[in-house]
Amino acid sequence: MSDERLSTAILGASGYIGQHFARLLADHPWFAPPTLVAGERSGGKTLAEVWQLAEAPPIELAAAPLRTLTAAAIARQGIRVVFSALPSGLAGPVESELTRRGVSVFSNAADHRRDPGVALLVPEVNAARLGGVGRPRPGHGLLVTNPNCSAAGLVVALAPIVRSLRPRSVHVTTYQALSGAGFPGVPSLSITDNVVPFIRDEEEKVERETALLLGRGRGSRVLPWKVPTVAQCARVATRDGHLEAVTIEAERRPSLDEILAAWRGFDPLGPRQLPTAPTPPVVLRGEPDRPQPLRDRWAGEPERARGMAVSVGRVRWSPPFLRFFLLAHNAVRGGAGGSVLNAELAVDEQLLPTRTP
Amino acid sequence: MSDERLSTAILGASGYIGQHFARLLADHPWFAPPTLVAGERSGGKTLAEVWQLAEAPPIELAAAPLRTLTAAAIARQGIRVVFSALPSGLAGPVESELTRRGVSVFSNAADHRRDPGVALLVPEVNAARLGGVGRPRPGHGLLVTNPNCSAAGLVVALAPIVRSLRPRSVHVTTYQALSGAGFPGVPSLSITDNVVPFIRDEEEKVERETALLLGRGRGSRVLPWKVPTVAQCARVATRDGHLEAVTIEAERRPSLDEILAAWRGFDPLGPRQLPTAPTPPVVLRGEPDRPQPLRDRWAGEPERARGMAVSVGRVRWSPPFLRFFLLAHNAVRGGAGGSVLNAELAVDEQLLPTRTP
Amino acid sequence: MSDERLSTAILGASGYIGQHFARLLADHPWFAPPTLVAGERSGGKTLAEVWQLAEAPPIELAAAPLRTLTAAAIARQGIRVVFSALPSGLAGPVESELTRRGVSVFSNAADHRRDPGVALLVPEVNAARLGGVGRPRPGHGLLVTNPNCSAAGLVVALAPIVRSLRPRSVHVTTYQALSGAGFPGVPSLSITDNVVPFIRDEEEKVERETALLLGRGRGSRVLPWKVPTVAQCARVATRDGHLEAVTIEAERRPSLDEILAAWRGFDPLGPRQLPTAPTPPVVLRGEPDRPQPLRDRWAGEPERARGMAVSVGRVRWSPPFLRFFLLAHNAVRGGAGGSVLNAELAVDEQLLPTRTP
Amino acid sequence: MSDERLSTAILGASGYIGQHFARLLADHPWFAPPTLVAGERSGGKTLAEVWQLAEAPPIELAAAPLRTLTAAAIARQGIRVVFSALPSGLAGPVESELTRRGVSVFSNAADHRRDPGVALLVPEVNAARLGGVGRPRPGHGLLVTNPNCSAAGLVVALAPIVRSLRPRSVHVTTYQALSGAGFPGVPSLSITDNVVPFIRDEEEKVERETALLLGRGRGSRVLPWKVPTVAQCARVATRDGHLEAVTIEAERRPSLDEILAAWRGFDPLGPRQLPTAPTPPVVLRGEPDRPQPLRDRWAGEPERARGMAVSVGRVRWSPPFLRFFLLAHNAVRGGAGGSVLNAELAVDEQLLPTRTP
Repeated sequence: MSDERLSTAILGASGYIGQHFARLLADHPWFAPPTLVAGERSGGKTLAEVWQLAEAPPIELAAAPLRTLTAAAIARQGIRVVFSALPSGLAGPVESELTRRGVSVFSNAADHRRDPGVALLVPEVNAARLGGVGRPRPGHGLLVTNPNCSAAGLVVALAPIVRSLRPRSVHVTTYQALSGAGFPGVPSLSITDNVVPFIRDEEEKVERETALLLGRGRGSRVLPWKVPTVAQCARVATRDGHLEAVTIEAERRPSLDEILAAWRGFDPLGPRQLPTAPTPPVVLRGEPDRPQPLRDRWAGEPERARGMAVSVGRVRWSPPFLRFFLLAHNAVRGGAGGSVLNAELAVDEQLLPTRTP
Repeated sequence: MSDERLSTAILGASGYIGQHFARLLADHPWFAPPTLVAGERSGGKTLAEVWQLAEAPPIELAAAPLRTLTAAAIARQGIRVVFSALPSGLAGPVESELTRRGVSVFSNAADHRRDPGVALLVPEVNAARLGGVGRPRPGHGLLVTNPNCSAAGLVVALAPIVRSLRPRSVHVTTYQALSGAGFPGVPSLSITDNVVPFIRDEEEKVERETALLLGRGRGSRVLPWKVPTVAQCARVATRDGHLEAVTIEAERRPSLDEILAAWRGFDPLGPRQLPTAPTPPVVLRGEPDRPQPLRDRWAGEPERARGMAVSVGRVRWSPPFLRFFLLAHNAVRGGAGGSVLNAELAVDEQLLPTRTP
Repeated sequence: MSDERLSTAILGASGYIGQHFARLLADHPWFAPPTLVAGERSGGKTLAEVWQLAEAPPIELAAAPLRTLTAAAIARQGIRVVFSALPSGLAGPVESELTRRGVSVFSNAADHRRDPGVALLVPEVNAARLGGVGRPRPGHGLLVTNPNCSAAGLVVALAPIVRSLRPRSVHVTTYQALSGAGFPGVPSLSITDNVVPFIRDEEEKVERETALLLGRGRGSRVLPWKVPTVAQCARVATRDGHLEAVTIEAERRPSLDEILAAWRGFDPLGPRQLPTAPTPPVVLRGEPDRPQPLRDRWAGEPERARGMAVSVGRVRWSPPFLRFFLLAHNAVRGGAGGSVLNAELAVDEQLLPTRTP
Repeated sequence: MSDERLSTAILGASGYIGQHFARLLADHPWFAPPTLVAGERSGGKTLAEVWQLAEAPPIELAAAPLRTLTAAAIARQGIRVVFSALPSGLAGPVESELTRRGVSVFSNAADHRRDPGVALLVPEVNAARLGGVGRPRPGHGLLVTNPNCSAAGLVVALAPIVRSLRPRSVHVTTYQALSGAGFPGVPSLSITDNVVPFIRDEEEKVERETALLLGRGRGSRVLPWKVPTVAQCARVATRDGHLEAVTIEAERRPSLDEILAAWRGFDPLGPRQLPTAPTPPVVLRGEPDRPQPLRDRWAGEPERARGMAVSVGRVRWSPPFLRFFLLAHNAVRGGAGGSVLNAELAVDEQLLPTRTP
């Protein structure tokens, strides 16, 4: 019996997001275990040797070697799907070349997020966008991006409620985890007993990508959401999980029960049965002091979707202001997991070769 | 030569705020070294034995005993000014009794902040309020309160700019330090690798007290500020210094230079030469990543006013939204130092017996 | 079909160790889901409501109520096995009464550890001790204790190598996790940016209990190990997992390979197939910078034994000094897991009613 | 009136130790404010722009430019004394060239610590060593090094007591602060909720340099101390201050009072009145839980010697084992402050041109 799963590779497998990709793809029902691609410095080492996450490396890949492969070599080896954890700047040209060579790319990098023909995608929020972009030209691969790690959680929390609230403005202030900066990332002397109220380009990305994700598609372009998102971003000394304080100034006044029901009933991917889709996508917490990074970062059912759910809590509604906190695992929901879910949606939409020919 | 400084006492001298009072009053030009009053558990010990701050105890008071004294005993000993660091709830009746017995009280507790005849005071912001309350009845002491630790920094940053901006709403999201909860306070297991998005009654206090402090006085009452303050409060793992992300939606559009100039030129207490008044009260930071709790908590010149300045930075003005971060030492500007400055203002206003008869 | 598993209860189910007991017993093959017993303050609440661990509460017990039950009531309900997470001091009399009423007790408390007729037990180290204590008198229950959390890891690491090294002295210096003090435990202001070089009675317990565990049994008494253990204990700001630096001054000089082989080959419980016994009990790490609390606290195979293995690394042998670091999960190997393993050994030794009659 | 203070420079002024040098030399009675020398990346910036310490930069030097100067240029400018905070490896040749050009060098780097003609110096411990090395050849500068940051505190604590105890062995286990690795140094993801039991070459340096410092000089060589120092070194998440657990196995049995008296009476530099010498050099703490990094890192009187005292506490003497904890500021006593004190001793010994000609 041959493995009918799609052949895959991870670009940037030595980094923090790359290792989350490895964790998620080591034993995936639709995608074959990935080829691990990394830069010169890690080339030749095993995944275990460069492992940086607190969780143990996946047994299936621990001994796998990291390889230095060009885009051409990746295409030549028959790899069909690439998950890109390359740093922004480096990612752009490599991802473009891969798609030209017929390889589909699901990327965590920012480089192509605003390209007209590229889907910036969060399946629960704008799945239709994938169809809007359309099937790649013959011989070409698809290019799909997941958003910035703070925007990813925000749009999942906003999507169910914006229609009934009709926001006038959205204010979001973040408490972002260390892993958002990867490795080596934030020096310990910068953050121990401290908060750093600055993350380069982060506020701009949150605002811009929220507008794109909540906008309406129009062919290969998107009509951005008109409501201003006003972001303030800071780094705190937590390992994983971005906490965000959100205040919506609303034009409409639904009841609190209607708002809560909108979150509870939200499950747009339900019928698709994607392996990494969390059910439900929004976990509503009723305790007075949740969500918290420590306790809620791994929210998400089933097991394969751990870290994919967005936890929402401390909901306070004194019209016109709706306030709540949300928590999303930045490296899973806001990173590797987002792109894996994007790839699953593409398979489901038959934009990638079907898994059972 | 007799010491003409006013005799003082600290209530709650074994706690975090109480010890900051001790630090500030150990060698004050206008107030005599305080009698230290504490509860049963600490009574009889020396200040050094119960000391909890990271900074060393003041040499002048290290060996001073903590005493358990009733309000009556305090009055009987001729103490003229009491600084109260009692926990809210406990503070109310004791402070009332002291004023009835002719002792003036400067309190960090919340109990009397909303009383009609009591000044909720931040000298740089609403010094006139002290006059509005007026001289205490003969034989009675004055009762003056400082606001909640998050509100204290906020109003100092807002005061210079609200007139020219005419805010429509003020959004404030906090990153509050551990010392805000005193000692033992936050369990380490609750906060290590975590953020807790809840502090009991904090958001209510910030909103209510900001409105009172920026309101206009009318005799013994205050007409609260009409602009809604929308607060979200969370605890982070820093030792001292509350960081706050502030977004103002403004109706007017002054230039950025005008806004910065308003902060730079702000020095309403200048001519009074109060010992604990920081000059300037607002320290404007131009670096891309300031203010930070670690680096800016002790801002404030001269030496005696360390921790009394409010640092403002990351100012971004894209009308109608003005965004910035502020940092204030919660236990100094937002606690003991605030009350000491209040007492200095009262002396300067000759509402307390003059220091040189 | 009736559940033939032994009926159980957890004393002190609202505390940190108690909740680890709940985690380990929620779905145990030999022990039925426990009755949760707690003090007045938690009585009536559900386990989920008092839950404090970062890991989610076990689904099977999340909604279970905490009950306030006397020893008599516990015995009357037919509970056969009690796991005690009561605080030392409180535990002693309750545990004694339970055994008098025919209930067997496996305790994490220190109260009875030194009693002549009570086994202080770490199954990999002194399983024979259980036999030495012997079957309880008719109508009485067994009373078995696990050691102090730092001693538990130490003796597992020492047991395989003491014979070939013949130590002259053992020096152990600890880096102990916050959860060792339970909840609320260590105030965050005491430990943030700090190390506290003092844990009450800890050094005494480590020294005394190591001597008891490595000693030889003689009837109901133990002849303590003669080699001095010299302990220095400190608290650091990690959540879980006690790290210990161990230096042995040895009289003999086996090769380094012999020492490593002794650790690798150590598996005294292997044939017994106890559910919570880790295989292997000692995990030898070859990396230059392991073991670490963050990465190794959950060491232990199979799944049920996670947190039960002792990780040993940085082994340096320059005779006569053998140096290494060890890491053991203080609340699992050094707490709840230790007592569960003790109970499994007692079942296996048929000192408790067999599970299949 | 001309400034008769010696002209100085700091090499590596952009780094952590370099900035502590700047702090200590900004206003020194014997040394003129330093020229700040740094690498290409920092050249042209001001000290304030590259400042990394939590403490504010010294006012006198905040606006001073960092310059990229060769050894030749430094000598040509008439600089007489250089304080070197260069990284090991880089430091060696530059320091050698400077001394050949007549500039005296006081270095924190490890490169020359073991050279026969170079003094490895801690003034309280082996001041005589400076004389043993002797006056530099005509036209040459002196080269004096301070030891590794962990060894520096250890030898100050050992020096007063080794004679009366006659140690058989010294066991030292460290809890080392983040600043010991400089900047960027330890990644926050490596150390948050963690301890790393490995610091490259650290244990070797502690052992070797303790032996050299406690050894006896013999001309330009040293006869190392014979007692084995057995070190285990780990990094913890504190900002500053290395805590060390020390156990001495002693051959002699003085009384505890004699041991404490030896520490209390220790003041070998007293008569010299060096500006940066702490009085006393060993601060004995009687509390049950001291010394602590947070509270004791800045120990040292007078003001100029803050961070230079070594705090000793938790002294337990159960012969033959003496146990205690010590705490020393790694970047002051174990870094910049150590070299400044070395330079002061050299001035006092008239090995540098006198300050008043």
